Amino acid sequence: MGCEEQMIEGRNAVLEAFRSGKTIDKLFVQEGLQDGPVLSILREARKQDTIVNRVKKERLDQLSGTGHHQGVIAQAAAYGYGEIEDMLEAARQKGEPPFLILLDNIEDPHNLGAIIRTANLAGAHGVIIPKRRAAGLTAVVARTSAGALNYTPVAKVTNLGAAIDELKKEGLWFVCADMEGQMIYDLDLKGPIGLVIGNEGSGVSRLVKEKCDFTASIPMKGEIDSLNASVAAGVLAYEILRQRMGR
Amino acid sequence: MGCEEQMIEGRNAVLEAFRSGKTIDKLFVQEGLQDGPVLSILREARKQDTIVNRVKKERLDQLSGTGHHQGVIAQAAAYGYGEIEDMLEAARQKGEPPFLILLDNIEDPHNLGAIIRTANLAGAHGVIIPKRRAAGLTAVVARTSAGALNYTPVAKVTNLGAAIDELKKEGLWFVCADMEGQMIYDLDLKGPIGLVIGNEGSGVSRLVKEKCDFTASIPMKGEIDSLNASVAAGVLAYEILRQRMGR
Repeated sequence: MGCEEQMIEGRNAVLEAFRSGKTIDKLFVQEGLQDGPVLSILREARKQDTIVNRVKKERLDQLSGTGHHQGVIAQAAAYGYGEIEDMLEAARQKGEPPFLILLDNIEDPHNLGAIIRTANLAGAHGVIIPKRRAAGLTAVVARTSAGALNYTPVAKVTNLGAAIDELKKEGLWFVCADMEGQMIYDLDLKGPIGLVIGNEGSGVSRLVKEKCDFTASIPMKGEIDSLNASVAAGVLAYEILRQRMGR
Repeated sequence: MGCEEQMIEGRNAVLEAFRSGKTIDKLFVQEGLQDGPVLSILREARKQDTIVNRVKKERLDQLSGTGHHQGVIAQAAAYGYGEIEDMLEAARQKGEPPFLILLDNIEDPHNLGAIIRTANLAGAHGVIIPKRRAAGLTAVVARTSAGALNYTPVAKVTNLGAAIDELKKEGLWFVCADMEGQMIYDLDLKGPIGLVIGNEGSGVSRLVKEKCDFTASIPMKGEIDSLNASVAAGVLAYEILRQRMGR
């Protein structure tokens, strides 16, 4: 369990952190704020005996790593990284074939946050990221994940290719997003699956691509080269969910 | 045809602008840069007799509106807004039922750019945004659209509801993205369609929602409330494309 960041910023993120049962060590709320969302947060804080500090906006601005605190910052037990074994166990408990999303060097924290958010809603059991050359679980990621980081585990591995080899032993198939793959609608994506999304500029790296069983492409009707990485991840993850739902 | 911004920043965006035949008035390139993408841009500039200014990084930083110029800024004829009539004409010429994406107050320029990018690749004929309380076509939007702004027209209207009424006369059906709608896989989305995406925080406004013929929801398997707006737009736009492809 690593830890890189202990501040949760913004109303949705803080409220979700409380509701998910996360331990909040301290809560900072801007003086005078009394609106609905803030009252909900204060109610949750009371339930959990969290220390509440009413502070001036300037103090929040100082504490803020993102500049988007919306008058509320929580100091939390750090976002811990999850374990792949726990993701597989969660799938077993739900009686679902495992569905993991592997990110081959996503660099933009907004993309990472949006993908964790998508993973949560599309029913993925976890997200796997490499230790080097990739965005980690920072405050920006937590905020753009809109609370998903409290529910969807993110594991950090030294080598994505080695992780794929291990997971193949567990019966997972790997599909890599690539412009030159088979069209997603032609692939059977219902079984135990690892979806591999590449870097924003350079796509999936050669070594990781070689480990994949399939490459899948999204139809491109237009003139430009590629979708935003988090949009592509969303389209692919939802195609997996649609097939799993038998639709 | 309005205009708000005349600078195109970043390598992909500048290269796409040249390739799409856009008139570039002036090109600023950081001194000493000679890598592949920069050489491609310089080649395009030579073809079009564009004035090239080699400048110091500090000068580019001054000119930059986004902070992400990557050593290249083009001063272009402004991004003009398109006309809805031209979108319908483009659909007619391609022999396709019209497919428009309407944005009910998307505020984040990164979301707007990503949605224009998605619109281009999912085969939408245009994007319609309201004049007030919404992101316009700034440099950030141009960059995050990854060149799509050169191909996919964006029209700005005073009143989104009135635009929907006009387009209904042209035979379009309107589907509004909402958590409480029918599941997208249960809807027939193959005909002439306007897809309405709501604001990041508050969704589609009541008045616009009342104008829509259907509300469509994306399945939500997880614990959190909603997808990122540009991811939701991507999942919905690609479901429309999938159905149109008969898959």
